Amino acid sequence: MKVDGTHYRTIWLTADDPSTVEIIDQRQLPHRFVVEPLRSVEDTFTAIKDMLVRGAGLIGATAGYGMYLAALQADESRLLEEMVRAGAYLKSARPTARNLGWAVDRMLAAVVELEAPATIRETSLATAAAIADEDAEFCRLIGEHGKTLIQDIARTKPGDPVNILTHCNAGWLAFVDYGSATAPIYAARDAGIDVHVWVDETRPWNQGSRLTCWELGKEAINHTLITDNAGGHLMQHGLVDLVIVGSDRTTRAGDVANKIGTYLKALAARDNDIPFYVALPSSTFDWQLVHGTDIEIEIRSGDEITTIAGLAKNGTIESVRLAPDSVEAANYVFDVTPSRLVNGLITERGILAAEEAAIVELFTDKITDTRSLHVTG
Amino acid sequence: MKVDGTHYRTIWLTADDPSTVEIIDQRQLPHRFVVEPLRSVEDTFTAIKDMLVRGAGLIGATAGYGMYLAALQADESRLLEEMVRAGAYLKSARPTARNLGWAVDRMLAAVVELEAPATIRETSLATAAAIADEDAEFCRLIGEHGKTLIQDIARTKPGDPVNILTHCNAGWLAFVDYGSATAPIYAARDAGIDVHVWVDETRPWNQGSRLTCWELGKEAINHTLITDNAGGHLMQHGLVDLVIVGSDRTTRAGDVANKIGTYLKALAARDNDIPFYVALPSSTFDWQLVHGTDIEIEIRSGDEITTIAGLAKNGTIESVRLAPDSVEAANYVFDVTPSRLVNGLITERGILAAEEAAIVELFTDKITDTRSLHVTG
Repeated sequence: MKVDGTHYRTIWLTADDPSTVEIIDQRQLPHRFVVEPLRSVEDTFTAIKDMLVRGAGLIGATAGYGMYLAALQADESRLLEEMVRAGAYLKSARPTARNLGWAVDRMLAAVVELEAPATIRETSLATAAAIADEDAEFCRLIGEHGKTLIQDIARTKPGDPVNILTHCNAGWLAFVDYGSATAPIYAARDAGIDVHVWVDETRPWNQGSRLTCWELGKEAINHTLITDNAGGHLMQHGLVDLVIVGSDRTTRAGDVANKIGTYLKALAARDNDIPFYVALPSSTFDWQLVHGTDIEIEIRSGDEITTIAGLAKNGTIESVRLAPDSVEAANYVFDVTPSRLVNGLITERGILAAEEAAIVELFTDKITDTRSLHVTG
Repeated sequence: MKVDGTHYRTIWLTADDPSTVEIIDQRQLPHRFVVEPLRSVEDTFTAIKDMLVRGAGLIGATAGYGMYLAALQADESRLLEEMVRAGAYLKSARPTARNLGWAVDRMLAAVVELEAPATIRETSLATAAAIADEDAEFCRLIGEHGKTLIQDIARTKPGDPVNILTHCNAGWLAFVDYGSATAPIYAARDAGIDVHVWVDETRPWNQGSRLTCWELGKEAINHTLITDNAGGHLMQHGLVDLVIVGSDRTTRAGDVANKIGTYLKALAARDNDIPFYVALPSSTFDWQLVHGTDIEIEIRSGDEITTIAGLAKNGTIESVRLAPDSVEAANYVFDVTPSRLVNGLITERGILAAEEAAIVELFTDKITDTRSLHVTG
């Protein structure tokens, strides 16, 4: 991830101040690049809930560091107790994102047998850093595996770009680095393949127009912004070769909760025989769930639909109202794409069918781990 | 159509000034209700192209009055010639909307055999008024026919509202009165049926949040604004009983060009066994076309996606930028829903299958009429 020549991750410990974590306030992109410090569990909760940070992997990594801040803050006499409380609090920030609970449970599992406060704090920091490092490395591997899909298409149309449609932002801004849906795109670019990305605007929070366009711009990847309504038309006209999206929670049978509207794109891809892939690190699997219908879908304020912020002519960020004053708006944040519409899952261990047998076979060790963590946490 | 107790149509001749036509500037809704005069063909062209007026029927009615203004403006020595030129000019304002060409051709057919300038002008006015009156009456009849669909659903769920999803604005703002997709809703309400409407925001021009919400609010119809992304999720969860949309151009085989994103809702309706109906006066049929793939799809400026206007806190209408400065945006305005996804067409003559045989049988007389008009115009 490069921003104007400087390498960034989306979350890091402040240099020379190990009690402060820093993040990019993604609400202000693409208009302003603002780094915000997190110094407490409360800061971390707010950053997740108000979407200063968002995206599967980054929510997990932020929760990891939030648990570390909890360990720093807590009274030494009841350190573990306060970390458990902080974990429950952080988990309540957003209900659908699987990585949130996964990271909290992993942090607790790492320290639950420890006693010395200093050891608990050191282990918390090491575990938070490991979660972040692993997220970046898994996304890099997703890129390597997913690149092969793009290479195969490129071979069928020499001289023409491979057109990839993506929804929301499953880019490096949504993870610690590389991204999930974008990782194969970056890897393909690095391999010299000509790629072009159709970026769904992604209402209501406009992750596509605000974040994915900004990120792809920084990476000099050719891209075109479209409304969420346009993908079906493009697919009908042969303008999309491949769809890659991310996942916020994936069932063991391969149903995928991702940004609202993903399901509509999966339907259009199927109707037009276009491959539809979901890129995800295994941390988004919810091993307890088989059916996507059991995933809790977050509902946020309708204000996110009726008003919108953007850059005014005078250079300030202004919020304007788009709908009549009195209107009610329902803001469902995710939908579930059933596995039957998914051609495959791109994970850190390879590409596999969106089917329970294939998933369980490839990730048997993770399932065991997670079950023990659930008992522990 | 009632606005705060006053009956309006969407287009009318100024009282005491038969050389001026008045319209509502729909770009300023819902924030301001502004009536704008049209005094020339140029005014009319701009009103259609810049979307002061929009919507299948209203574009047709406006073109009719624009041809009347052309007759008033034209040099008497070459009145018909200038009307033919004005017709070509008006037709070029927007390519996909069928009613535009249809109304221009009908205006020309009404005067082409006439000679006296006064007679041509009188006949132009009478024909423009007839187009508008017929549009309103056909929409009223669409309401009567479509109401039966809603009644049938209401009987299956006594005590609960019938949930209808609509895309864009095919309301009275899109026609002269009643609307197409909304007419059955108003007729059902008048028949005492409890209805609730899910209103797709309809990016990028936000006809749903700006116009349909405003119109349904004025009619005191229960409604909830959603993003274009949300309809599939609602359908998966049994929250939609019926989808009704409009059409901007309909082929003789029942393929439907309507606002971009309509196709995605049709796919979701089919995937969830929810009836998907298209309401249209026969003026939207393009009898020359069988396949929807032959419909020209309008492409508008990408600025409609990257910037948006809304009501700022200081009460002014402000435009703000939503995407990075440098971004390219592709703004396809319509898509085509293939007839296989359409459960039926609601027309002024009744509800029929979206199939060539059924369509041609019910509208044989119109087909003959239109072919002769094409030769004339």
